[in-house]
Amino acid sequence: MASQEPHYKAIAQRKQAELAAAIPAEWRLPAHLIPDGMLSISDSITVGPKSYKRVGVMDIPRTCGIITPKELEITEKYDVRGLVAEMTEGRLKAEDVVRGFCKRAAVTHQLTRCLTEPLFDRALQRARELDDHFQRTGAPIGPLHGLPVSVKDTFNVKGVDSSIGLSALAFKPAKANAPLVDLLQSLGAVVIAKTNIPQTLGTLDSCNHLFGRTLNPLNRQWTAGGSTGGEGALLAMRGSMVGFGTDIGGSIRIPAMCQGIYGFKPSNGRVPYGGQQSGQIEGKGRIGLQAVAGPLARSVADINAVMAEIVPRAELFGADCIPGSWLSQSVPITLAPRNFTIGVLKTDGLVTPLPPITRILNEVANKLRSTPGVEVVDIPVPSVLPKCQGLAGRLMGVDDGSHMLDLIESMGEELTPWLQGRLRRGKALTVLQLANLQAQRAEIEEEMMKMWTLTSQASVARRVDAIICPVAPHPVPELDRYNAVGYTSAFVLLDYPAASVPVRSFTESDLEIGREMDSPVLGSWDKANRQLWDEKMVDRRVYLGSPLSVQVVTPKQHDYQLFQAMEIIDRAVQGGSLSAKL
Amino acid sequence: MASQEPHYKAIAQRKQAELAAAIPAEWRLPAHLIPDGMLSISDSITVGPKSYKRVGVMDIPRTCGIITPKELEITEKYDVRGLVAEMTEGRLKAEDVVRGFCKRAAVTHQLTRCLTEPLFDRALQRARELDDHFQRTGAPIGPLHGLPVSVKDTFNVKGVDSSIGLSALAFKPAKANAPLVDLLQSLGAVVIAKTNIPQTLGTLDSCNHLFGRTLNPLNRQWTAGGSTGGEGALLAMRGSMVGFGTDIGGSIRIPAMCQGIYGFKPSNGRVPYGGQQSGQIEGKGRIGLQAVAGPLARSVADINAVMAEIVPRAELFGADCIPGSWLSQSVPITLAPRNFTIGVLKTDGLVTPLPPITRILNEVANKLRSTPGVEVVDIPVPSVLPKCQGLAGRLMGVDDGSHMLDLIESMGEELTPWLQGRLRRGKALTVLQLANLQAQRAEIEEEMMKMWTLTSQASVARRVDAIICPVAPHPVPELDRYNAVGYTSAFVLLDYPAASVPVRSFTESDLEIGREMDSPVLGSWDKANRQLWDEKMVDRRVYLGSPLSVQVVTPKQHDYQLFQAMEIIDRAVQGGSLSAKL
Repeated sequence: MASQEPHYKAIAQRKQAELAAAIPAEWRLPAHLIPDGMLSISDSITVGPKSYKRVGVMDIPRTCGIITPKELEITEKYDVRGLVAEMTEGRLKAEDVVRGFCKRAAVTHQLTRCLTEPLFDRALQRARELDDHFQRTGAPIGPLHGLPVSVKDTFNVKGVDSSIGLSALAFKPAKANAPLVDLLQSLGAVVIAKTNIPQTLGTLDSCNHLFGRTLNPLNRQWTAGGSTGGEGALLAMRGSMVGFGTDIGGSIRIPAMCQGIYGFKPSNGRVPYGGQQSGQIEGKGRIGLQAVAGPLARSVADINAVMAEIVPRAELFGADCIPGSWLSQSVPITLAPRNFTIGVLKTDGLVTPLPPITRILNEVANKLRSTPGVEVVDIPVPSVLPKCQGLAGRLMGVDDGSHMLDLIESMGEELTPWLQGRLRRGKALTVLQLANLQAQRAEIEEEMMKMWTLTSQASVARRVDAIICPVAPHPVPELDRYNAVGYTSAFVLLDYPAASVPVRSFTESDLEIGREMDSPVLGSWDKANRQLWDEKMVDRRVYLGSPLSVQVVTPKQHDYQLFQAMEIIDRAVQGGSLSAKL
Repeated sequence: MASQEPHYKAIAQRKQAELAAAIPAEWRLPAHLIPDGMLSISDSITVGPKSYKRVGVMDIPRTCGIITPKELEITEKYDVRGLVAEMTEGRLKAEDVVRGFCKRAAVTHQLTRCLTEPLFDRALQRARELDDHFQRTGAPIGPLHGLPVSVKDTFNVKGVDSSIGLSALAFKPAKANAPLVDLLQSLGAVVIAKTNIPQTLGTLDSCNHLFGRTLNPLNRQWTAGGSTGGEGALLAMRGSMVGFGTDIGGSIRIPAMCQGIYGFKPSNGRVPYGGQQSGQIEGKGRIGLQAVAGPLARSVADINAVMAEIVPRAELFGADCIPGSWLSQSVPITLAPRNFTIGVLKTDGLVTPLPPITRILNEVANKLRSTPGVEVVDIPVPSVLPKCQGLAGRLMGVDDGSHMLDLIESMGEELTPWLQGRLRRGKALTVLQLANLQAQRAEIEEEMMKMWTLTSQASVARRVDAIICPVAPHPVPELDRYNAVGYTSAFVLLDYPAASVPVRSFTESDLEIGREMDSPVLGSWDKANRQLWDEKMVDRRVYLGSPLSVQVVTPKQHDYQLFQAMEIIDRAVQGGSLSAKL
């Protein structure tokens, strides 16, 4: 590694050249439109107050001149159902829709490094097939006919790399589609790109040596989040209608929070998960903690539009899926006369949320209190909740981690800055230790049931339909400063469906300049979290304008109910439009 | 162990004295009514043709004079819904119903050794509470008000042992009810007894040193099956309305087959499984193979009656359960115009069924072919199916088995005859080996999906609604001769709901005296199976009169559809009444 150019850099150059070549010359941004800075993976952890100037790129698609007014309309005017209706009612051609989104994805990528595999050519080819079919038969291919979607790099697409940012896996095209990709295509959706992720998939900043660092389009100084960070950036800039990611510690909900969009982590078995490259030993999820696949989108309606089509068909495509019906899975809610009870869980008992996080939660709770048909109750911190983060972490690392490290080291790759000092070969558990962890998990699950139910002498009844709580105990942080995933990983451990819902942006009044937190420090995670608010360590003004979100959670397998809760919260907050919020 | 009476024998004496004392003197059978033989665990494996005289005890409850005509009517006239209606419409008192079944259970036990913990006193006390409640309020406690039920010894009942036949666990009463017991009680059901199981729970004959051997009431020479063997005997003799067992290798379906009743192994998460004593390390099911709980009963209607109440409430009681609605879980079937397609799977590719098993399957297939609205298709043996038995077996033994052996050896207990030479301390897997097994399982699941679906260029559709196949590749065998569980364990590996449905009894024409099997021997399991048909090894006449059953299987989590398929098959075969069949 000393004198010679490491092999991985040559592969990265070749990969990036391939990526650049997939973007037609007429879709390329002039250099002066691309703001400087932080395209490198080494622009990362710096601690201490600095001066900040927000550098966002959200407006560039509208102003760059590359995207036509018609394409701006196509990419900005519709939600999922509206856009599909334009095509299935003959007002728009799938080819034009797909081209508009491919172009916008290309522009977004040049500003954020969000893509790994642009699939523009094959997407346009597929769109023309859809148009032919529609012209010939008068009928759409499926309920998502022509819908441009994107998937995290982990999902296999036949003939395309699933490199997950590792040079060791580059130029090894997948032999078959992931079941989710097959399912999406059977619905008529068109996969226009695969998107960027972190080295190892195990960090909260989407940054690797093959594709570089994905930047947050709202502000390059904020993290784009991870591990589905490329989707977060792409969707925020409307370069795709819906994106699909995976979540084991928060990897759908965290980038959704960082970009102020909606991220939906289903329960296990609702969205096909198979056919992905994880860089881990096969079968690990089944003995440790199982990641799940789910959508990110710009509205609750768009989450609903895709889940309504995926969930009932999931079992036919994914051997890991179970039967489900989106509408009749749980009793449909009519807000009156039945009440929808929403619990407010203020902390996980391990890391006290920073003041703006508590404030946004209280604001949402108050708005819900004045919503007809909604009852709001406080949820005391369940005694076992603080154990969840540690247990989830241990169940993510049941083997010694060698498989991933071997992949990285085989090409002489360095660890990205955040991973340095954090990732090392561990010691595999014995099966007795593993069984013991799973037994602890079963005990936690049993205890956590009490959060949802009311037990009387003779029976048990549902008490709470959904809870709200923080996505993270801090606002969207700067690069590589995301702290702890307990608020998100707990609900993978418990298999509760959980979603990020953006509420509003961080304002001057959230700054509380000069006021420090005075509650007792709970432990090392809590201490680290306070560094993100301590005026000696951070200029809080960096958070100005960043999206503030809440997390919504329902009991295991109540995924449709989660959508209902999201809708109730979204409407209570402010009519549910993203643009109104940020 | 040499000179002194082993400690376990003293415990067994004390335990059996306690058991005997729970049976009132006026419910005790005179000795001359109890046929000789095979109450001992050592009356077991003998190979080679013998002369057989069928010794059944099914008629004794009617003839012994202990059970009154009214109690005979209570225990024989009704199905679950009919019996509950008698109580909730005020025609019968719960106390009289429960007393009738307790008495019949006591008589059955004296003839079959089916009970471990008679709960007659507390059951009668509970029945009086139910009657008081009904008298006071005019309303039943729940939809199963007063229904006498029984549970396998593994389920914890507060204040009662869950010894599972091990002296090491005797006289250690459970501190809380299993969630299933709580659920049943909340429905108004009354648990009248816990029932016998095999030492280690891992054999197919319910035989242990604490309670002895459960005998098949149809014929003491046939095995009662296991591991839910006590339930099988108790239910066949109408000593309980519905029993609850568990199944990891066939432990619900096998005793159902052996006694000619119905056994329903649900998918994971439909019936609360927690709160049981398994004699295994905690958490083992979550990393290896997960057993499931489910009902045994005398009719499809009775299976339906309890599942319809349990499934929708399961998630409120069991942290291991998911939401479910029994009626609307899948599209309700109206036989016309939609066809119900039933596949016929003749072999698992590992053990060729003996001629009467193939014949009964063909008979059922033919009856289904002439059933309106039913389409019957042949299912080629999936290429991965022969791998299932071995993989399921390996996933049952992921640790070294020490926990169970320590329990047994700590009291100086001997292994029961069948286990001798078969059970020994193994070597725990590494997590890498374990993950590899689970990865193999995922591959098998994916491949097995093709059995159910039809894949066209653009989509996937359901092709088969249910399949029928053997429960075992042989008829009900003699004691300790059950061969291989591949036909049942495969559907636990795959988490497919599966049930035993009795068809008819074995007749002279099934004997095929003088005709040997001529198909090639497939391997050691197949070779062992043929010993049960080889006239040099067995007098086939031992099977005369034994129940012949088929197994019914549906895709993962299609439990309601399994009930529908059972009903279709049951009606096609002969009106669905047990008494008409045996």
